[in-house]
Amino acid sequence: MKTEICDQFGIDFPLFAFSHCRDVVAAVTNAGGFGVLGGTAYTPDQLDQELTWIDEQVKGKPYGVDIIVPAKFEGKGENLSFGQLAERIPEDFRGFINDLLAAHDIDVSDQPRMAASSLSGDTGASLLEVSLSHPIKLMANALGVPPDYMIEAGKQTGIPVAALVGAKEHAIKQVNAGVDLIVAQGTEAGGHCGEVTTLVLIPEVIEAIEAIGKPVPVLAAGGIVTGRQMAASVALGAAGAWTGSVWLTTEEAETAPYTVQKFLAATSRDTVRSAGRTGKPSRQLVSDWTDAWAPHEGGRQPLPLPLQNMIAEPVLRRIDKLAEGGHPGAQALATYFVGQGVGLMNKVKPAREVVLEFIEDYLAAAERLSRSLDD
Amino acid sequence: MKTEICDQFGIDFPLFAFSHCRDVVAAVTNAGGFGVLGGTAYTPDQLDQELTWIDEQVKGKPYGVDIIVPAKFEGKGENLSFGQLAERIPEDFRGFINDLLAAHDIDVSDQPRMAASSLSGDTGASLLEVSLSHPIKLMANALGVPPDYMIEAGKQTGIPVAALVGAKEHAIKQVNAGVDLIVAQGTEAGGHCGEVTTLVLIPEVIEAIEAIGKPVPVLAAGGIVTGRQMAASVALGAAGAWTGSVWLTTEEAETAPYTVQKFLAATSRDTVRSAGRTGKPSRQLVSDWTDAWAPHEGGRQPLPLPLQNMIAEPVLRRIDKLAEGGHPGAQALATYFVGQGVGLMNKVKPAREVVLEFIEDYLAAAERLSRSLDD
Repeated sequence: MKTEICDQFGIDFPLFAFSHCRDVVAAVTNAGGFGVLGGTAYTPDQLDQELTWIDEQVKGKPYGVDIIVPAKFEGKGENLSFGQLAERIPEDFRGFINDLLAAHDIDVSDQPRMAASSLSGDTGASLLEVSLSHPIKLMANALGVPPDYMIEAGKQTGIPVAALVGAKEHAIKQVNAGVDLIVAQGTEAGGHCGEVTTLVLIPEVIEAIEAIGKPVPVLAAGGIVTGRQMAASVALGAAGAWTGSVWLTTEEAETAPYTVQKFLAATSRDTVRSAGRTGKPSRQLVSDWTDAWAPHEGGRQPLPLPLQNMIAEPVLRRIDKLAEGGHPGAQALATYFVGQGVGLMNKVKPAREVVLEFIEDYLAAAERLSRSLDD
Repeated sequence: MKTEICDQFGIDFPLFAFSHCRDVVAAVTNAGGFGVLGGTAYTPDQLDQELTWIDEQVKGKPYGVDIIVPAKFEGKGENLSFGQLAERIPEDFRGFINDLLAAHDIDVSDQPRMAASSLSGDTGASLLEVSLSHPIKLMANALGVPPDYMIEAGKQTGIPVAALVGAKEHAIKQVNAGVDLIVAQGTEAGGHCGEVTTLVLIPEVIEAIEAIGKPVPVLAAGGIVTGRQMAASVALGAAGAWTGSVWLTTEEAETAPYTVQKFLAATSRDTVRSAGRTGKPSRQLVSDWTDAWAPHEGGRQPLPLPLQNMIAEPVLRRIDKLAEGGHPGAQALATYFVGQGVGLMNKVKPAREVVLEFIEDYLAAAERLSRSLDD
């Protein structure tokens, strides 16, 4: 099997797997796909350890690293300290969240501290430096135009730079900035996402970057959890698929058991695009937490990134722990980044098996389309 | 070219075209596709005339009729008069709309009367009766489970009954009710739509109706304005595509010139899913009107169907007329049902040419997918 990028990336099957879990990254790469480790949540030392482990597993086979460096965030360019950022959180905000927690029988006397948000972008450069000391074959930025130092590093090392976009205007900006691979991600995607669906976005992005004479390859992302959807993406003109959610219910993933059960039970209508977690709209499971924030009817307007994230993330981590322990109120509040494809994720499987099923399903879909041409 | 339904419907290419315009319906049918006339806005006499005209044009080639009969609406089963329904509209509602119009320099002294909503479902039976006196090859209901009399008519006449669904649960309900053809419509569709995207919904619906052992054919709908998107749908397992928006910018369509210009200029991000027009969420162009209603920030909660429609429709028709005449305030308020595919609609063409381009683009997409299998 082959699209324009298989040779470039040294892969058999143009399936890119984004995961925070090194085991998934290695398993996908070893099965002929391309694993991409989400590196943003690690310290530079931790990331170094994770990548060393992956290197031992994949023995030279290709993988990449994704580091979120948002193009826009509250306080950007102002060089604010954590404390100064924290001062921008309205006084009654903590009260609003405490009321929500109390209504779910969660003790609010022992409040988690606010967390410095990894989304504020200050650790990106050192994470990238660590990554470049490993034989990575792709560096990606999942939020906005990659920072200059990433584009520059790409030029110097020859390692392709990928960027995620949710609109054709952003794709044009990214290509003009020097990005080598566009991941066009539809609104059905888990995590940060735009409003345009994958089926519309892919042809729109491809048309737009062809029109400016810079036709870099485009991967389709958003809602893709099966080979037939990947085949559909290639029919649309994509060079392959970028996936995330589908790996959350693999055996290798570190997803907590309670969360896995929620994923397996969820239908595609159990997700919502909400800014209530990070301050930017991201798709996640519907819960009493997402219901508490606009645009849900009567919900409060979230703060901008990274303020919402600073206050919400530690609270949500505590909620996750309580939910795992069986706390009913916490279980009603718990939410997780996942795309609409969760409706098609109904069984826990090894990551390798997911790759093999993708290939089989892709072939069947190609055969189905080919058969439609017979008279 | 052939999928499972081409023989059943006597067509060369499984492209279904929904339009309110008889000229589009006839042109698509005559080009080898399947035209479907949206019949809800007509009186029974008018519909009879339209269908007679189509009969003369298509000379026995197949076409269908779509009549919207919503499964749920305010006052359903209560046998309310127009006046009784109108009494359920809150007193300050007219004031809210008048303020919005006045802020756009529109004279509010001469208010349009409320309109009896065709969406309240009372004329459906007589429209269907008229349709059945013509050689239609499909009857469709675009909103919820078709009424018993439509299912019954389908059984008696052998004419297939189609229904639009936006969720797999609805597909199961429809198939169990006896529907012969499911149109699974993603959130990117123009008009009434659900929340799940076409790329996720199609495999989810097909899997769900296979699981209950009633695998009726599924057409893909939502965002489809090109042959490559139709090919993607067939790769996903659909038997063809159901389209709507793409015909709005054809030469045959009766779309007003100002509206056509808005469509040609719009990108996929210029639509919104809002209940501000009919009381049920429907996708349309973003405008100051859609911004005035929730879930837009600070927007007012719309009334349920058909109340919102009764008050909004006459006002929006007046706005359309003023907008056509060049009134800037009305142009800012004017909105139109259209899907995200509007971003790919950039030129006015004859409907026949759109069909031929679909075929050509479908073939190219199938070829692209097939080529990806070469080693």
